[in-house]
Amino acid sequence: MKGEKNPSLIAIDWGTSRFRAYLVSGNGEVLSEKASEEGMAHVQRGKFGQVLLARCGEWLEQYRNIPVLMAGMVGSRNGWKEAPYVRCPASEGDIKAAVQRIEISPGRTGGIMPGLIHHDAGVADVIRGEETKILGAETGDGVIVLPGTHCKWAVMAGGYVSSFHSYMTGEFYGLLRSQSVLRLLAQEPEDRTGFARGLASAQREGGLLNQAFEARTAVLDNQMRAEQVGPFLSGLLIAHEIIGAARRSDAQGRLKVVAQGVLAQNYEEALKHFGFDADVLSPRQCFVNGMLRLVPDWLK
Amino acid sequence: MKGEKNPSLIAIDWGTSRFRAYLVSGNGEVLSEKASEEGMAHVQRGKFGQVLLARCGEWLEQYRNIPVLMAGMVGSRNGWKEAPYVRCPASEGDIKAAVQRIEISPGRTGGIMPGLIHHDAGVADVIRGEETKILGAETGDGVIVLPGTHCKWAVMAGGYVSSFHSYMTGEFYGLLRSQSVLRLLAQEPEDRTGFARGLASAQREGGLLNQAFEARTAVLDNQMRAEQVGPFLSGLLIAHEIIGAARRSDAQGRLKVVAQGVLAQNYEEALKHFGFDADVLSPRQCFVNGMLRLVPDWLK
Repeated sequence: MKGEKNPSLIAIDWGTSRFRAYLVSGNGEVLSEKASEEGMAHVQRGKFGQVLLARCGEWLEQYRNIPVLMAGMVGSRNGWKEAPYVRCPASEGDIKAAVQRIEISPGRTGGIMPGLIHHDAGVADVIRGEETKILGAETGDGVIVLPGTHCKWAVMAGGYVSSFHSYMTGEFYGLLRSQSVLRLLAQEPEDRTGFARGLASAQREGGLLNQAFEARTAVLDNQMRAEQVGPFLSGLLIAHEIIGAARRSDAQGRLKVVAQGVLAQNYEEALKHFGFDADVLSPRQCFVNGMLRLVPDWLK
Repeated sequence: MKGEKNPSLIAIDWGTSRFRAYLVSGNGEVLSEKASEEGMAHVQRGKFGQVLLARCGEWLEQYRNIPVLMAGMVGSRNGWKEAPYVRCPASEGDIKAAVQRIEISPGRTGGIMPGLIHHDAGVADVIRGEETKILGAETGDGVIVLPGTHCKWAVMAGGYVSSFHSYMTGEFYGLLRSQSVLRLLAQEPEDRTGFARGLASAQREGGLLNQAFEARTAVLDNQMRAEQVGPFLSGLLIAHEIIGAARRSDAQGRLKVVAQGVLAQNYEEALKHFGFDADVLSPRQCFVNGMLRLVPDWLK
C-alpha cells in the first residue's frame, strides 16, 4: 500500500463562519489541517484567493499537482464564485459534473462544489456543504441525519440523494435557551435527566408551543430543577424533529448520524427512544470521504 | 336606571409591564381610566401603595366607599402581596373566596385576586390576571381563547374554569421574527397573503421546526416575497397552536376570542380555516365584567 500516505487532495470546508482545510491522503487520512475564523461572512468580496493562499500557501507550493476542492458557502451567490444548486434526485455524477472551475492562483485551477436543491410539494429546501458529508457517509440506501443549527435529514436511494429537509432545531434551542422567558429559569451546570423528560413531553398532547412552556411552569411549581431546563428543551426539540422527520422520510431501523460529542449523544438517545438505531459517524471523516469521491476528472 | 352611571368599583389590571386602572359603573361601563408603565417589574418592593395613590388618589378620595380590586402580577410572590393560586376546577365562588385583603391606605381595605393553577398529567400551568377575563367572557360552557405572548386556552364547564393551557405563540413569533436567521429575510410593509400560506404550511408534514424554515428557502427561491415572511410566521404559529389546543380542549363550533385589532383578525381567520367560528370579545370589557362579578362580599 505504498503511497497511501501521500497527499492526494486539498479539501476545504468553507462555511459562513469558519474556514477549515485538510491535506488528505488517497485513503481518507487527514495528514494535516488548518482552521481559522475566516468564514465567508468575514471575507471581503475578491479576497477569497488571498485567504486561501495565506492559510494553505505552503501546501499549494509543496504539492503542485494535487486537486484543490472547496465546499460550503464559498460556492454561494455571495461567496468566491457561485456554483448553482443541483436538483434532487442527484447522483454522485450529477454533483461532480456541476463542480465549478475557479482560478485559485495564476495558472492553477481549483473546484467549487455545488449545493443541492430539493422541491417537496412546491417548497424548496437547499443545502451547501452537507451534500459532501451525505455522499461521504457512504450509506447505500438509507437516511442520514446531520444535526446542527439547521439539522438536515437526507435520503439516499439507488445511488441518488433523493430528498432532504431542514429542521431549525439548533436555532430554536438557542432562541429558547438564551433569548426567551425560559432563559431566566435555566441554570448550569446542566442536569441531563431533563433530556428524557423533554423526549416524553413531546409525545403528549398540546404541541411544541405548549410543551416548551412546561419549563416555566414546572420550575415555578418545583416539579423541574432549573438545571434540567436546558436539557429538557434540547430533548423536546430533538423529539419534535424526529417525529416530524421520521414519518416523512419513511425512516426505519438504522439511521446514520453525522455528529460528535454531546450532540451525537443527544441524537443517539433520542432516536433510540423512538425505536431507531443510530450509527454515529465523524463529520470530519464524512466530509473528507465525500470530497475524495467528488473530485471531477478534469481536476485530477 | 338611575344610579347606573355611578362609580361602583375601582378595578386595577396590574401586570408585569403595565398598570391600568378603571373606574367602573355597576353595569360595566368604564367611566374613567388611568394607565402607566408602572408594571410590577418597575415597582420597588414596598412601593405599590404609593403607585396606587399617585395614579388613583383622586378616585380614592372622591369615592370613599366603593371597592378597590386588583388583578394580575400584583398578586404574585414578587408583587404587593401574594394571593395563592386556586386549583382548577375553580368556580366563581372559589376565586372570590381566595381574594386577599390588603390595606391600600390607612383604614381602607382592598382586594387582590388570586391566579389559577391547573395540573394536566402532573404538569402544572398557571395564570394570573386572565382568570378575570375568562369569568368576564360570560361564556357559559365552552372554550375561551386569550391570545398574547403566552396565549391561554381555557375551558368553562358547569360554572367552573375546568382547565387551561398556555401556548408560547406570541413569544415564538417575536423570537423568529426579530432574533432568528429569518429576521434577515423579512421586510415591511407586511403582505398579509403570507398569513394564509402559514396556515396551509402547518397542515403539511414535517412539523414546526421544518415549516418555519420555509420562510428562508422560499424567499431565496423567489417563491415567497420578503413582505410575506412576518405574516407567514404568524399564520404558521397560530395554526400550530390551534392544532395542539383544539384537540386537547375538545373545542367544537363556536369559541370566544378575547382580543382586538390585528391579533383578533388573525385568530378569527385562523380559527375559521380550521372550522371554528370565533366570537371576538374586548379584553378590556371582559376584564371589567370579570372584576364586577368577582368582588367578594366583605369588600362591598
